[in-house]
Order: sequence, then structure tokens, then C-alpha cells
Amino acid sequence: MKIYFSGSIRGGQQDVEIYHEIIEELKQYGTVLTEHIGTKIKKNNMTDQEIHDRDMNWVIESDVLVAEVSTPSLGVGYEIGRALDMKKPIICLYRSINGKTTSAMIRGCTDLQCFEYATLEEAKKILKNQLTH
Amino acid sequence: MKIYFSGSIRGGQQDVEIYHEIIEELKQYGTVLTEHIGTKIKKNNMTDQEIHDRDMNWVIESDVLVAEVSTPSLGVGYEIGRALDMKKPIICLYRSINGKTTSAMIRGCTDLQCFEYATLEEAKKILKNQLTH
Repeated sequence: MKIYFSGSIRGGQQDVEIYHEIIEELKQYGTVLTEHIGTKIKKNNMTDQEIHDRDMNWVIESDVLVAEVSTPSLGVGYEIGRALDMKKPIICLYRSINGKTTSAMIRGCTDLQCFEYATLEEAKKILKNQLTH
Repeated sequence: MKIYFSGSIRGGQQDVEIYHEIIEELKQYGTVLTEHIGTKIKKNNMTDQEIHDRDMNWVIESDVLVAEVSTPSLGVGYEIGRALDMKKPIICLYRSINGKTTSAMIRGCTDLQCFEYATLEEAKKILKNQLTH
């Protein structure tokens, strides 16, 4: 199984450790195409178009998209929208931060599987349920 | 012409005045379906699903999507992704904030018309060029 993990690159650097843990967990279930999301931003020489096209090719190639949607992100929202139109299964995980949950557009989309979690253990249980049944 | 204006609801409340000005400008060119984006959040009794489905119906109905993408937003990214798959023309406007511009996934997508602006006058000129030619 090929898994596209989607998380906020620029806004979510405080969450990079959580992304890393989720990615490590996902590796039990398949190949994670976007392992770099779980490490701090490194400079690279890719243009925006190269990044976009690489990531879209990975979305196309993937069997499932797993998105961490606690942090607002244009890229994550865009990838969810595109993957939805490709009929990919999409699992969205989010935490409550300062009493706020994720976007109404995400939670209100019945084609997504959205789950709130508080601890990493809860997130792992959700992923196990979703990816092994 | 029916115009869907997309802006960050939760993260972009500091930008609501800019959204309002852009919406007022857009009214010259057609009907803006999402005029509420240009006013402060008001409580309503709609469920997330009702909000999602209403907004998606407006995207479907629209002739063009205009997105202000200076502020990270899952909803705005999602709407751009969905509208792209519907082959809608999409105009993205963004400012540089603290030296950062908008997401690489947005700027790197060659199917979007992306423009940086600094002043509202510049934004108005871009819209005029895009919507009248």
C-alpha cells in the first residue's frame, strides 16, 4: 500500500515531531511517499512547480491519503481537494488547539474520514482501525 | 458572471477588511456568491456539513473562483483543489507577509493564475486585467 501523508510544511513546524511519529506508525502499513514531511524544512533547489508536480504525482500514485489537519494549510487543503476528486480514500486526523478544531469545510465533507485525537496513542488506534479493516 | 470569492475564515480575520474591499471591487464584474467572507464571523446554526455543501454548490455554480491566499487555510486550499478539477478559472492573489509568500503548492500549480500584490490598487488592477480580457 502506498500512503501519501499530508501535513502543514510552513505553518506546522511546531508539529513536525507529531508528523514524524505518525509517519513512523504508517510505515507498518505501507510505503510512505512523503517521509520528508516528518523532518524540519531543508533547503532544496526545487522550483515551486517541481514541488507541486512531484507531490501531485505522489497523490496520483497513492492508495490512501492521510492528512494531519490541526494546522491551517493551503497545501494540505489543496491536496485533500485533489485527492477527493481522484476518489482516493482520505483519513483526516486533528487535535483541538485552544478550543478550536479543524476547518468546517474539512469536517463537513462526508467523503472524508475525519477523526479527532488527543494523544498519539489515540491517533495510532484510529490508523489501525482505518488501515487494517 | 458568478464569482466565488474564497478567503480564510478562521485564520484570516485580520484580513477581513481586505476581503471586504476585494469583494466590493468584484461586484463590478458580477455577482459575488460568498459576500459573507468580507464580514466578521457571525454565529449561525448551520452544521459543518451544511456549510460544506452550500459552499460546494456555490463553487459548482460559479464561473470563476477568486482566492486571497496570503493566509494559510485548509478551506481555501480545498476549494481551489475542487474548483480546479471542475475546470473553473482560478485567480489567486497574495501578499508577502514577513518575507513569506503563499504556499509552494499554490504558486507551483500552472493551472492557477497567481499574482502577488502589495496594495489594494494593485489587486484591483490585476482583477480588472483578468476579468475583462
